[in-house]
Amino acid sequence: MEQQKICVGITQGDINGVGYEVLLKAFDNPMLYELCTPVVYGSPKVAAYYRKAQEMSTNFTIVNNASEAAEDKLNIVSCMDDEVKVEYGKVDDEAGKAAADALQKAVEEYHDEMIDVLVTLPVGHQRIASDAFPFKSQHAYLEQAVNEGKKSLAIYVNNDFRLASVTENIPLREVPSALTVELLQERITTFHHSLTTDFGIDAPRIAVLSLNPRSEGQDKFGTEEELVIVPVLSELVDKGMLCFGPYAVNEFMASESFLHFDGVLAMYHDQGMAVFNTLSLEDGVLYTAGLPLVRTAPAYTPRYEVSAVGMTDEAPFLKAIYLALDIYRQRKSECEARNNPLRKQYYDRRDDSDKLKQMVAETKDEDVL
Amino acid sequence: MEQQKICVGITQGDINGVGYEVLLKAFDNPMLYELCTPVVYGSPKVAAYYRKAQEMSTNFTIVNNASEAAEDKLNIVSCMDDEVKVEYGKVDDEAGKAAADALQKAVEEYHDEMIDVLVTLPVGHQRIASDAFPFKSQHAYLEQAVNEGKKSLAIYVNNDFRLASVTENIPLREVPSALTVELLQERITTFHHSLTTDFGIDAPRIAVLSLNPRSEGQDKFGTEEELVIVPVLSELVDKGMLCFGPYAVNEFMASESFLHFDGVLAMYHDQGMAVFNTLSLEDGVLYTAGLPLVRTAPAYTPRYEVSAVGMTDEAPFLKAIYLALDIYRQRKSECEARNNPLRKQYYDRRDDSDKLKQMVAETKDEDVL
Repeated sequence: MEQQKICVGITQGDINGVGYEVLLKAFDNPMLYELCTPVVYGSPKVAAYYRKAQEMSTNFTIVNNASEAAEDKLNIVSCMDDEVKVEYGKVDDEAGKAAADALQKAVEEYHDEMIDVLVTLPVGHQRIASDAFPFKSQHAYLEQAVNEGKKSLAIYVNNDFRLASVTENIPLREVPSALTVELLQERITTFHHSLTTDFGIDAPRIAVLSLNPRSEGQDKFGTEEELVIVPVLSELVDKGMLCFGPYAVNEFMASESFLHFDGVLAMYHDQGMAVFNTLSLEDGVLYTAGLPLVRTAPAYTPRYEVSAVGMTDEAPFLKAIYLALDIYRQRKSECEARNNPLRKQYYDRRDDSDKLKQMVAETKDEDVL
Repeated sequence: MEQQKICVGITQGDINGVGYEVLLKAFDNPMLYELCTPVVYGSPKVAAYYRKAQEMSTNFTIVNNASEAAEDKLNIVSCMDDEVKVEYGKVDDEAGKAAADALQKAVEEYHDEMIDVLVTLPVGHQRIASDAFPFKSQHAYLEQAVNEGKKSLAIYVNNDFRLASVTENIPLREVPSALTVELLQERITTFHHSLTTDFGIDAPRIAVLSLNPRSEGQDKFGTEEELVIVPVLSELVDKGMLCFGPYAVNEFMASESFLHFDGVLAMYHDQGMAVFNTLSLEDGVLYTAGLPLVRTAPAYTPRYEVSAVGMTDEAPFLKAIYLALDIYRQRKSECEARNNPLRKQYYDRRDDSDKLKQMVAETKDEDVL
């Protein structure tokens, strides 16, 4: 079936979490089918359970794979044993396995070019890792499965800013030594590349936070700023990247400086995420940059404390879909522009005529350079 | 002069900073003199400079010391060489010295019982430390000058929450080893005591954050939580304190959980301050708990990037004054209540009469116990 609309693969995530709830709420709105064709990797039975629990009427249709997906329908590809029991709020190994299975199935169909982008519903603190799925997180699996093991970069996006972190979710004790010149260079470069090609920003301005607080009563930071951050920034600025900092995070946030930048780079997980979550109660989205596949996810933190179905806002999930669509289109138009560049125009300095000339790709004239 | 109103000592802070600006803006409102009698430790000349720069008409009156302070006037005690030059936005050793001199003068008059509470204007990154003033911050000086060297606890207050930190403004590398059982116990106990006696909360609920982010794909934290935080919390809970946690900071903020607690305890400076400053653009106040003197300060971060006089909101300074007054009154009423406790009423179990008896402090009757 030849599809006009972008086909969005959606993995179910933790069946005991908020995933199906926000999925059904979102696709209860028929307008959404104008934008994309959704294919859920999950379980029709679990979907039916949550539909009943929420007293909703969202229709869905069961398909064997994404190539059979119908437009204007919430398509579901069944990827789990239908006997799995839903126990809302429970952290459960079976649910973890179901989340992993759905993700693997989605990636399989991505490789077969059946889906265009991937939106993952949250797995939370669920242990998706198992002998059959030896990855501690969804992005670790995706790096392996679609990126030949090369690292990705988590970019958190809300209405105000795009935030990434140099070191990942590691113990605080290990952060200072993990912050190396090479890692920082790699992170800024990946961030810069994504802001350019995925977000369509020509010369992105990146704010880099400091690792240490500013010393009390003084205008300086600690040793890591001097030895790692400042030298890397100078080098990249010399290469033409618009990197600024390091900024003390509390001062940076107090002055709302983030509004002046296209991206903010934190040094460690909590430095960025505490602030991001404070500002993004309803619009936080995670984008995994650096993969050939466009993957986004709503930035819900695990919410097992939400004791009842029906309490979670679907807005971040909708934003995750919109962002995936935007990035997919941006990459496509960038790609088309590169394949059909405007011909360069120039005046030949050695020619006295006023005539504007055009450079053509096939030209053999060696003067034209 | 017998004063009815609470006498608020105000130190000028950095003369090249935002201090005089917010001071003059605040006391331009005559209503404020209904609440307190202000005594500024600073310079009439600098005040006149800023008054002119802002084209304001706030009146002030020069006094020799706070005991001469007039009600309904902005009193200024001159404590610096009148030849010091104002260079707005400049980080300058002379200005640092002027800030230190004003603070020392204010403490001197506090010891002489001329002022009731102290509100300090910001010194920013100014180097107030010198041979004559060997303290790296204002609170370090106050611990020495009014608290016999005993530690204070910085509590940041806004409309939504009260936040303190276990470790202070130290390099991130040193945080994990600085977080000891003893320090954590001391901090929670001081915090609890201040919430009770200064803020008048009978059984304050304290949320304690984790040092580490939650491990990816798992429901646990790092070693410091297991070895330090959890044992201390259990112990204090056994003693009857309402301590909860540890909470991952990003999840805590995402769920707006801080609204359910009377105090939040961060493990390190930036963990709390990044979030606090994000939420307190206009109402952040610092209170230095654990001193006999009530000292507050507006929680402006240093703002040398504010290039022109007149850009800074006086609201945090006003809130600092209000908080100092509130805490002063709370302590006073607490003190009066303790001096004149209600007599305890009891029924004597060994007495068959239905008569309610009163316990009197002077009783010699050994039965009454």
